[in-house]
Amino acid sequence: MKIICNQRKLSSSINTVQKAVTSKTTLPILKGILIETCGQQLKLVGTDLEIGIENYIDAEILSPGAIVLSSKILGDIIRKLPDADVEIEVDENNNTIIRCENSEFTLIGQDAVEYPELPTVEEEHAYKLPQDLLKNMIKQTVFATSLDETRPILSGVLMELQEESINMVALDGYRLALRRANIKNTVKQKSVIPSKTLNEINRILTEEENTDVEIFFTDKHVLFNMKQTRVISRLLEGEFINYNQIIPKEYKSRAKVKTKKLLDSIERASLLAKEGKNNLVKFSVKDEFMHITSNAEIGKVFESVSIELEGEDIDIGFNSKYFLDALKIIDSEEVYLEFTTSVSPCIVKPADHSNYTYLILPVRLVG
Amino acid sequence: MKIICNQRKLSSSINTVQKAVTSKTTLPILKGILIETCGQQLKLVGTDLEIGIENYIDAEILSPGAIVLSSKILGDIIRKLPDADVEIEVDENNNTIIRCENSEFTLIGQDAVEYPELPTVEEEHAYKLPQDLLKNMIKQTVFATSLDETRPILSGVLMELQEESINMVALDGYRLALRRANIKNTVKQKSVIPSKTLNEINRILTEEENTDVEIFFTDKHVLFNMKQTRVISRLLEGEFINYNQIIPKEYKSRAKVKTKKLLDSIERASLLAKEGKNNLVKFSVKDEFMHITSNAEIGKVFESVSIELEGEDIDIGFNSKYFLDALKIIDSEEVYLEFTTSVSPCIVKPADHSNYTYLILPVRLVG
Repeated sequence: MKIICNQRKLSSSINTVQKAVTSKTTLPILKGILIETCGQQLKLVGTDLEIGIENYIDAEILSPGAIVLSSKILGDIIRKLPDADVEIEVDENNNTIIRCENSEFTLIGQDAVEYPELPTVEEEHAYKLPQDLLKNMIKQTVFATSLDETRPILSGVLMELQEESINMVALDGYRLALRRANIKNTVKQKSVIPSKTLNEINRILTEEENTDVEIFFTDKHVLFNMKQTRVISRLLEGEFINYNQIIPKEYKSRAKVKTKKLLDSIERASLLAKEGKNNLVKFSVKDEFMHITSNAEIGKVFESVSIELEGEDIDIGFNSKYFLDALKIIDSEEVYLEFTTSVSPCIVKPADHSNYTYLILPVRLVG
Repeated sequence: MKIICNQRKLSSSINTVQKAVTSKTTLPILKGILIETCGQQLKLVGTDLEIGIENYIDAEILSPGAIVLSSKILGDIIRKLPDADVEIEVDENNNTIIRCENSEFTLIGQDAVEYPELPTVEEEHAYKLPQDLLKNMIKQTVFATSLDETRPILSGVLMELQEESINMVALDGYRLALRRANIKNTVKQKSVIPSKTLNEINRILTEEENTDVEIFFTDKHVLFNMKQTRVISRLLEGEFINYNQIIPKEYKSRAKVKTKKLLDSIERASLLAKEGKNNLVKFSVKDEFMHITSNAEIGKVFESVSIELEGEDIDIGFNSKYFLDALKIIDSEEVYLEFTTSVSPCIVKPADHSNYTYLILPVRLVG
């Protein structure tokens, strides 16, 4: 194999596929990146067998072939080379020479035939979604997945494709995040995608409105096709919780509040809350104000946020972290907080549209 | 005590004095910041008994007094408050109320009389130096101090004030950095300042050319006065090495080379060097080129840098880290490398002026 390609393109490509490479593997070849000629392009592949990332770049192919090179060393070397043409030449013993201006590296590669093949996902019945929308949907749900390894299904996000809409749902036993979008489509699907996969997809997706991502499913895998980059991931097995049952349909009181003001106040209150136990902050919702308080050995805090209240007064306690997580990713200026009793869930919703629902369980207050 | 002052000023002041506060102390009061009214200003103080930082800010003093508050909690709270007036009120039991817009914090403070006094340094015979120059001198020397605790004197930088010049010198047994500046003055002094102190000073100093820092010495302490901020530090005790003896006065070969090109080449070579032992890179200086090579199990590298050589060819090996450290902080476009034999020190100097001398011991090459 012998190819020439631009240093910046190559470096950015390595950077993309490196996300799927883990150093914690017992299979040494997985610490490498597969570099393979593919027509007039160069294909780079990284995988940890759970997730695989392929990236294609333009290159001058002088002779075809393939090689596996250490992801870390290769990445470090290409990143440090000048912005110029890089030549990669591999001999029959997998010795690889990398030349660029006045630098010449010789690396011992591994045979490409040893590299595992990524699972095949047929590219028919594409589900198309604008990249910026998917990025936003991931951002608003993935943080609510569970880290508890005893319930693996909760470490993923449910993606529900329906005729008129798409839903993404994550929950961890303490809170639930549901993001909807109205998109007509013919594919019907219900799959749980690992949070790690979605975090990597999120990094690769652009903010551009007019670029689509194509998604394809099999029983066990999902493929995200973003033109230059394809991500193939295993799906999580098992039944996702019937989340619709959990979300209350009614409320007894509803407070409208400025998102940023509420976020800032809870952040300040949580400075003392985290000194105590459970990050506990108390809300006292009454008339035109919501008072947020927290106590610790070293002192206490009292915050006041103006609200528009419909319905009854309420005193209720929360783990501040679960509130902060949601308020940070809601992009509307105002939110509704919907309460029923001090021991039933609170719902947080953007005030200006209905595409997002966030549920938090309260902490029982003593005395 | 009762005062009002601007949130941003207060936050920046806390940030400055916090640098002297350590959480690793057996004396709980040292985890706090002393806040004290001082005429129409507010003085904030942090210290770990080795270094003390005082910062003065404008404030509205409604009633004088002093209090010690937890550095971490206070810093977090003030940083999160809105950019508005902050009122601090302390009662006779050291309970401290911090108010700002809709927030009210109550913190339990500690009595200011418990707080240790900083050492007194008489402010006569000021040694004046432009802030940007001192900043540069620190940057070019402090990195070469030793981390070896068995020779504490080497963990500091020697500051030598002479009639016509100031020298700053650091060395760690493997390399030496000497920065000179020509400044006329009447103070004669030879003191060793801890590297931690200089690192903190470096953060506080501005890049402005026309602002001076005033330095005052006693036998045991040094005071840096930067108007709003004063830093008082203990000096290191003991005799500094007679560094002039170490620096060779002659050389057999001298290579002129572009600083950035050399830096980039050694950085690339060190990617493999750090996989092997000792970060070893080999220089082969001959005619118009310097070849830089390094070997590891995984591969090897060959770099070529053009030079202007006077004198003999030479092959010599180095720990790449010691070269990189110096090349990163030398700001001239070209440097001279001066060699004598492959087992004697190499000198690195800026090509366009003589205010900086860096010495590195070579690594003996086997075979």
